[in-house]
Amino acid sequence: VSGRAGFPPVEEQLERIRRGAVEVFPEDELARKLERSRATGTPLRVKLGVDPTAPDVTLGNAVPIWKLRAFQELGHVAVMIVGDYTARVGDPSGRNKLRPPLDGAQVDAFAQTYLDQVGQILLPERLEVRRNGEWLAPMVFTDVLRLAGRMTVAQMLERDDFQARYREGVPISLHELLYPLMQGWDSVVVRADVELGGTDQRFNLLVGRDFQRQEGQEPQVLVVNPLVPGTDGEKKMSKSQGNYVGVTEPPGEQFGKAMSVPDALMPMWLEHFTDLPLERVEELVDPGRTHPREAKEELAKAIVRRYWGAQAADAAAAEFRRVFSERQVPSELPEARMAAPAKLVDLLVEHDLASSRGEARRLVQQGGVHLGDDRLTDPEQVLDPPDGAVLRVGKRRFLRLRR
Amino acid sequence: VSGRAGFPPVEEQLERIRRGAVEVFPEDELARKLERSRATGTPLRVKLGVDPTAPDVTLGNAVPIWKLRAFQELGHVAVMIVGDYTARVGDPSGRNKLRPPLDGAQVDAFAQTYLDQVGQILLPERLEVRRNGEWLAPMVFTDVLRLAGRMTVAQMLERDDFQARYREGVPISLHELLYPLMQGWDSVVVRADVELGGTDQRFNLLVGRDFQRQEGQEPQVLVVNPLVPGTDGEKKMSKSQGNYVGVTEPPGEQFGKAMSVPDALMPMWLEHFTDLPLERVEELVDPGRTHPREAKEELAKAIVRRYWGAQAADAAAAEFRRVFSERQVPSELPEARMAAPAKLVDLLVEHDLASSRGEARRLVQQGGVHLGDDRLTDPEQVLDPPDGAVLRVGKRRFLRLRR
Repeated sequence: VSGRAGFPPVEEQLERIRRGAVEVFPEDELARKLERSRATGTPLRVKLGVDPTAPDVTLGNAVPIWKLRAFQELGHVAVMIVGDYTARVGDPSGRNKLRPPLDGAQVDAFAQTYLDQVGQILLPERLEVRRNGEWLAPMVFTDVLRLAGRMTVAQMLERDDFQARYREGVPISLHELLYPLMQGWDSVVVRADVELGGTDQRFNLLVGRDFQRQEGQEPQVLVVNPLVPGTDGEKKMSKSQGNYVGVTEPPGEQFGKAMSVPDALMPMWLEHFTDLPLERVEELVDPGRTHPREAKEELAKAIVRRYWGAQAADAAAAEFRRVFSERQVPSELPEARMAAPAKLVDLLVEHDLASSRGEARRLVQQGGVHLGDDRLTDPEQVLDPPDGAVLRVGKRRFLRLRR
Repeated sequence: VSGRAGFPPVEEQLERIRRGAVEVFPEDELARKLERSRATGTPLRVKLGVDPTAPDVTLGNAVPIWKLRAFQELGHVAVMIVGDYTARVGDPSGRNKLRPPLDGAQVDAFAQTYLDQVGQILLPERLEVRRNGEWLAPMVFTDVLRLAGRMTVAQMLERDDFQARYREGVPISLHELLYPLMQGWDSVVVRADVELGGTDQRFNLLVGRDFQRQEGQEPQVLVVNPLVPGTDGEKKMSKSQGNYVGVTEPPGEQFGKAMSVPDALMPMWLEHFTDLPLERVEELVDPGRTHPREAKEELAKAIVRRYWGAQAADAAAAEFRRVFSERQVPSELPEARMAAPAKLVDLLVEHDLASSRGEARRLVQQGGVHLGDDRLTDPEQVLDPPDGAVLRVGKRRFLRLRR
């Protein structure tokens, strides 16, 4: 792991670390840390906090995981902090329905699912997984008061999102002010040299620097990555927005979703979601040098390759071409038996073509659902199709109905 | 304690409770509580939170204590909450030098001193003393998060002093936002029917109402008393401002300080610091009916009488008249032996004529220190007076120096 021979030259390391980062702050401190690390043969400790409440890892969540992997390949140690303790509380105000309180077993299960997924990206021999309950659970009220006494309300409301919400009268629960403190304290406990996070985390990463300085530690360096929009081209990719690509989704799904990305997103997706060299990325996003359709195919292949390997990527590309370029029904279709006539909305949910009745209705209303060549427009319509009829949702999801 | 015969009529109780209160909120709720209390023979639980970090009880601190006593005399139970748990933290930001962190022994000692003093005012058989550590100490981080989730930042910044400080850029430490939550939770735990507090506590008392409502309890009624200015006629009476009268100060001190009060304060001091009937107070503050000097003497006597009895009050009045009306040195002077020449500032501090070197310097610079008839102007001056010389500070503090 360590040893003078083990670490590449600092400039080479910096170049790798900078890829995709919107900010490395302060970069001169990182250079000094890297130099000292090389001179003494001591790996840096690179922290990433993860939230076990959303166990499906998306390409967006995976961006900092791949950055951790890069640090590992450079010889450093990835310190992944699982926020198990805070997940148990959820959103005590009850306003954020996406953060219900979880019991210990649920948190453990989510955390394990999460770690299984990122375990396929990270090198286990340079990975330290810590749960924040380890140091937060023993803290009592006076400890929290002391922690809180390190910051002021004004400092906290400097955080962009808090500031905006406060100005606009959108409620900020008091407990939300405590999360940055916990995250900052994590950095002290694990003695982080570097912390990774999205632009929405920048403030919290700075709290870590403050606390480390107060505790006489050298402050961590921030490596900030952008929040990459999802397949809709607008909102940050997330499971709850339905605009995500999951790292465990099958090759065909990943490929198809990547092909549906708006052209404007190509540069970001190529830079952040693939390991294609930046020179190649430049060629791909230049319509004078690459046909956009070809570029998108290379993007989709590069994504699938990362998670499923080159062979799966090629197969997904071939299948995609067959279905969509040749407008054919895929060679192998999933099938389902319909015992009796059924409402369209029920059918879609029952066979996982929609994740909820609400989504099912939306899909139908948006005109994305076909039976054979007929567009279906009424979610409440009762279907009684002949054996072998093909139900299609969007461009890529098919179900052959057997009677 | 209880029993239908034990509680006076509601209107009579209300009148007694209203004395000196700037607000009884909501008064109709209090009337209903009192009616039910009478009907069922159940005393109300009247809460007062006290801070054991300032163990010298002043006339100002004693205002709500006397109100508790009034409730006791009406048949109700005084629930005094000693903030022992929070006293241990002090001000973790370190900005408030008046709130150093205290260790358990110090807190216990302060709390005991405090209780000894208020014990002379309250009826022990209707007094319940609780320490907030009883329920706050077992709380862990997630409990604090849940408590914090009950309030928003905006609600918290509605508090007058927070709002003003936030606007003026005066730092508000995050931990300060947690104190109102703790105080509010206290009300839930002790099931308070009424909470007493100064106008600066109004917001915190309302938090208690919210929390009780959330927990399915009937919310407490607020009895809010004004912050009465100290002897300087300007700032709230407090030990740290040096403008206080302590409830344990000797009769002569109390009397003299009361006589020095600006005329404008007479109505407030008479209403809040004495038990003189309000009709008598009206006579006293009307210069057409009472000479101001006579009114002030009655104020001073009424104060001393409360804490030391009628005889001590009369004696203090007589002594005061002898010394100041007749411009004589008091008959009995405290004496001190000066082994060697000494600096004025040291002398003042050593013999308790000033509480600190800073105060000693201020007293000299303000022209309040005399040796015999000579005004002393240099705090660093070395004194080498003859045996029997009298050092005087202000109008009322004397020390005969023996060589």
